Amino acid sequence: MDVDAEEGTLLKFAPFQSTVDEGFWHRLSSLKLNKLRLDESPMPITGFLAPCSHKQVPSRLTLLAESLPSEDQKQSSSLPATLNQGNRNRCPVPGILYNTNTLEGFNAIDRVSLLETEAKKIWDDIHNGKVEESSSVLLRFMVISFAELKNWSFCYWFAFPALMLDPAARVVSLRSASQCLSLEQAESLSSACNEWQNLNLDVTAGVLFFLVCIASDSRVTLRHLADWEACMDDGQKVLFGFYDPCNVPYPGWPLRNYLAYICIRWGLEKVHFLCYRETRGFADLGFSLIGEASISVSPEWKTRDCTPKAVGWEVNKGNAKPNFISLAKAMDPTSLAISSADLNLKLMKWRAVPDLNLSILSATRCLILGAGTLGCEVARLLMAWGFRKITMLDSGKVAISNPLRQSLYTLDDCGEFKAIAAVRSLNRIFPAVEAEGIVMAIPMPGHPVAEQEEQSMLEDCKRLHDLVECHDVIFLLTDTRESRWLPTLLCSSANKIAITAALGFESFVVMRHGAGPLSMIKDSGALSSLSAEMHNLSLTNRMGKRRLGCYFCNDVVAPVDSTANRTLDQQCTVALPGLASITSGYAVKLLAGILQDRLGIFADAEFANSANNPSSENCLGILPHQIRGSLSQMSMITLVGHASCSCTGCSSTVILEYQKRGLDFVLQAINTPMYLEDRTGLTELKKSADSFNLDWEVGTDDAEDDCVEI
Amino acid sequence: MDVDAEEGTLLKFAPFQSTVDEGFWHRLSSLKLNKLRLDESPMPITGFLAPCSHKQVPSRLTLLAESLPSEDQKQSSSLPATLNQGNRNRCPVPGILYNTNTLEGFNAIDRVSLLETEAKKIWDDIHNGKVEESSSVLLRFMVISFAELKNWSFCYWFAFPALMLDPAARVVSLRSASQCLSLEQAESLSSACNEWQNLNLDVTAGVLFFLVCIASDSRVTLRHLADWEACMDDGQKVLFGFYDPCNVPYPGWPLRNYLAYICIRWGLEKVHFLCYRETRGFADLGFSLIGEASISVSPEWKTRDCTPKAVGWEVNKGNAKPNFISLAKAMDPTSLAISSADLNLKLMKWRAVPDLNLSILSATRCLILGAGTLGCEVARLLMAWGFRKITMLDSGKVAISNPLRQSLYTLDDCGEFKAIAAVRSLNRIFPAVEAEGIVMAIPMPGHPVAEQEEQSMLEDCKRLHDLVECHDVIFLLTDTRESRWLPTLLCSSANKIAITAALGFESFVVMRHGAGPLSMIKDSGALSSLSAEMHNLSLTNRMGKRRLGCYFCNDVVAPVDSTANRTLDQQCTVALPGLASITSGYAVKLLAGILQDRLGIFADAEFANSANNPSSENCLGILPHQIRGSLSQMSMITLVGHASCSCTGCSSTVILEYQKRGLDFVLQAINTPMYLEDRTGLTELKKSADSFNLDWEVGTDDAEDDCVEI
Repeated sequence: MDVDAEEGTLLKFAPFQSTVDEGFWHRLSSLKLNKLRLDESPMPITGFLAPCSHKQVPSRLTLLAESLPSEDQKQSSSLPATLNQGNRNRCPVPGILYNTNTLEGFNAIDRVSLLETEAKKIWDDIHNGKVEESSSVLLRFMVISFAELKNWSFCYWFAFPALMLDPAARVVSLRSASQCLSLEQAESLSSACNEWQNLNLDVTAGVLFFLVCIASDSRVTLRHLADWEACMDDGQKVLFGFYDPCNVPYPGWPLRNYLAYICIRWGLEKVHFLCYRETRGFADLGFSLIGEASISVSPEWKTRDCTPKAVGWEVNKGNAKPNFISLAKAMDPTSLAISSADLNLKLMKWRAVPDLNLSILSATRCLILGAGTLGCEVARLLMAWGFRKITMLDSGKVAISNPLRQSLYTLDDCGEFKAIAAVRSLNRIFPAVEAEGIVMAIPMPGHPVAEQEEQSMLEDCKRLHDLVECHDVIFLLTDTRESRWLPTLLCSSANKIAITAALGFESFVVMRHGAGPLSMIKDSGALSSLSAEMHNLSLTNRMGKRRLGCYFCNDVVAPVDSTANRTLDQQCTVALPGLASITSGYAVKLLAGILQDRLGIFADAEFANSANNPSSENCLGILPHQIRGSLSQMSMITLVGHASCSCTGCSSTVILEYQKRGLDFVLQAINTPMYLEDRTGLTELKKSADSFNLDWEVGTDDAEDDCVEI
Repeated sequence: MDVDAEEGTLLKFAPFQSTVDEGFWHRLSSLKLNKLRLDESPMPITGFLAPCSHKQVPSRLTLLAESLPSEDQKQSSSLPATLNQGNRNRCPVPGILYNTNTLEGFNAIDRVSLLETEAKKIWDDIHNGKVEESSSVLLRFMVISFAELKNWSFCYWFAFPALMLDPAARVVSLRSASQCLSLEQAESLSSACNEWQNLNLDVTAGVLFFLVCIASDSRVTLRHLADWEACMDDGQKVLFGFYDPCNVPYPGWPLRNYLAYICIRWGLEKVHFLCYRETRGFADLGFSLIGEASISVSPEWKTRDCTPKAVGWEVNKGNAKPNFISLAKAMDPTSLAISSADLNLKLMKWRAVPDLNLSILSATRCLILGAGTLGCEVARLLMAWGFRKITMLDSGKVAISNPLRQSLYTLDDCGEFKAIAAVRSLNRIFPAVEAEGIVMAIPMPGHPVAEQEEQSMLEDCKRLHDLVECHDVIFLLTDTRESRWLPTLLCSSANKIAITAALGFESFVVMRHGAGPLSMIKDSGALSSLSAEMHNLSLTNRMGKRRLGCYFCNDVVAPVDSTANRTLDQQCTVALPGLASITSGYAVKLLAGILQDRLGIFADAEFANSANNPSSENCLGILPHQIRGSLSQMSMITLVGHASCSCTGCSSTVILEYQKRGLDFVLQAINTPMYLEDRTGLTELKKSADSFNLDWEVGTDDAEDDCVEI
């Protein structure tokens, strides 16, 4: 190590080498996605100098997760709180991050002027005395970066700005400290350094640069830079010491700005310096260097207002070019999938929908009744919207004609229960989904069961009741009118959000059911005595507005616009391809809108192209009650249908009856369609159930779920 | 075999046993799907009696593919042409098929009265002499069936109507023919029978029933039934012979109606009969039976107008219930998938869209540019619509965030080229698809290439040109404006149907490009001299109407309605989930509409909710030029934009230039955006290309294709 530098040659400096821990990129991604979003303001960060015990290894400046503010931490322009939490193994130094929104922005950065800007900060800190307060500002660094969040790849470039002395510093002498000092001096220096480090353990930032005062009795003391004049007055020999984390036979990069400081601040032309180095946390004077450099003030530096020349962009593998890193391969596939999914969603909040509440979507438990064309597409879209809890219910098996229209199945799934195959498919798309498949048929009015099957049917009713209870949203996507009755009743009774989507041959309807008729009553114990008032109350919601209708209310309450409300050919068993894609898109958007609405299930019906929508505060736009469209006519309308007091699905009459008599009521309704009629005065449901009583028990495969009446 | 029946006991008859060949069900399915559709009229069919050489085996009546008329055969109420094409091994007998449209219809059939109806036909044929013309009418049978075409399962029930003698026939004697006849008589009978069969090989239907005349010199001759009186006059011994395909020790089912015929027609009370049986195609008098039965005319049969009692519904496995058969398991999965796919499509023609031309859809070659969210959904929907030739082009790889929105990928596909993974997925959904994946980037103006890459870029241009040439329809579903330019130019030059779909954050546009500007010119050799006239011609199509615009015409020609035509935030890289599903649904429907239109690419623009659509003759409804919608506003409009004479994508200026200079022109346009501007006077394209120049070369994965400007 003992090196006798050739006198008069230019002084060399060992540049820093940057290293970035994966944790840094993870935290940066998270910050960018959730907090910074489109903000491109420079951000203060903290780098860490790590001591290096191995020969020939350059000084490392490392970025860790802690280099960045944590997400909940209030962003401020001052140095992050972590700055002073260094230790012997990582001395914090202040840096600044310029993270751009695009790769173009990254490439467009004027690196020359950016470096000048940073150098000017050092220049100013030297002139205004900041260096004496916190000498680490001499080590200011910066990083420009672009985070390609979609595939976890990052592009970045470090700069360690160094003011350029002109003429450059020359070596007068440079030797191992142990060679330059007497044994006494060396021992005293070692213990002084160790003591200094221990004393300043919590304020490392302030003591990277220090004065080494060697008294005539060989006693060595360390002093702060601010004490230089006092030291000179004491007549002691003074070395400009600095913590030099590298281990090469010439000084590390920190000496460059140190010399500039000494030159500007104290006007010296000969500078004695100590490159203080450690081995395993203790002073190592064999590795440490003592040298003398000759410097002179550059002519341009005469005025404080000048812009000093600087160098410092890191050279990467011998070239002046940015670094690239991709973390995707190192990440666990599931967590990668989760973060990718979150990315797509969180990007929406950056600019388009800043108020979007994503956590309500991921927390909402969705029950999808029917895993056919609509059910498959709705489940896919729920996942894309960020829903994570999905239960699919269907009694059928995948038929060979299904995969072409039902997007969760392939031919390999044929013969398998749809609910099971669908859930497997959801997991292949997104392994973090919490999906469950339920193989079960929905009991239907107009489909009376034999006495020996009654018990099993009642168990199905109970099971469906429990499923509705433990979900927040129920999608009614089955293929017959009558299979929607019990779910409608249960949702209305439990006041759950229900979304119906149904297809005709070329037309569709998507609607949200209104709140249940009892949703404004808290005390359910007094139900029977309340039944008289209920009848009136049940048509208004707790805001006193008219309650929105359910799928069965349509039977008696004509929608405002009836052009798209044609009865479809009842035997139709096909729908135009693509109709289900369109319908599902609107159905899931409708749910997202309800969940974002302050009033939720009680939200008023809004209309497309209407100037007087009561609340246009929904961040996802208007929230209609019903959407009907025609693919032949390439048209779509929004409309509203209010709750009917004689509805078989949601009137207070039937809900009260259900709450009073439970499964007995359901059994009676199922086995005796006249009963529902009697209770509500309607004949529609029975007629419909009769004419649709297609009992496909023959084959082993299920009938296609494609198409139902509107 | 020699059986001496106990005299005076009731005469037993061996019932027929039905067997149905798979070929019958396949042809029935095909007929039902393509020709009969909803028609439930009774259909004449032909059953075949097969001789049976094994003991104890009942008479089989078999239905084969030929039992049904072929699809191209004109349906008539007479017996099918195959009727007389029997041979020794299959004697045709007339039947009738009642195939219902639903299982309910099947179950609702009044079998008692149906049997009576068929029995009445036999009754009438006996009275009106039809039996003498074609004795096989005594074997009339019928089948009721329901074909569950979706899963290839069938429900059916045979009836072999037999008029019930009352009182029933009694056995006087019943013995093996060889026992009853002298050796001479037997030999003569055998040779007479063989001769009779050979003589009547082509008219088997007429000779299932015949008279056996035994002369006193033991010579046996066979005569037609009509000759009975003549035979009686000859004083010969006459047996009523019939071809009895069973091999049990009592007569087969044909004897029942034979006895009724003899009783009614000739008033006999004692009937000598011969159950003529064969072994390996030759008379076998050991198996044949000769017997005498005593019969008497039922009192009800006195008047011809009565409805005779009948029996005959086949007993299946000991029970009076229908048969079920499922062919799905026996079918090759691919052909099963094909037929299932066809089924869904052909069902559309039954009632909803009888004029739908499916073969043009399956023959159309589709090129999909971009295999992202839109491309995946469009490819799926094309298959569901019956398109079978699909090429997908994309340069990117499946990124981890893709599967949640791009419906052809799962997490397992990550890292794979999209075009390859998409095609694999299409095959898993429908193995008969003819899909090809092309990994290729589309050259783009405003993205100049380095000189060393020029050749490869020109090869890409050439390849894209060739791909456009060998497809009929091109979907432009890429994620940047500028990547749509070259495909637009190529489609316009080759006059190919081009469909653009593009997404904003919450809005979409779907449009079909108008016909190319040169589409009315046949002689492309005289192009340059025509260029002056072209400039005027190019804005009208060959019908003299204004040509519809392309995606780039929008830049200069404002659409009629601009409410949905807002410029979207240019850095938007996300779209609301579901938007692509909706957009794809309309895009593929738009193509289907063009292909069903008489004018195809030249079809006029129609509008939703408009009374004056020029041609409402399109079987799929209105055919707009552009559809724009907003998911926030839950609105959708149709609009039209006419071709612009300064369009960079489809004006005659650029098309002529391209046709004259080919790749040189493209290269110039790509490397020098100003050139296109100069040629057309537009600055829009360049601006757009500049501002969208997001070059994502950094990572290994491709950027999401989700979102582009509108």
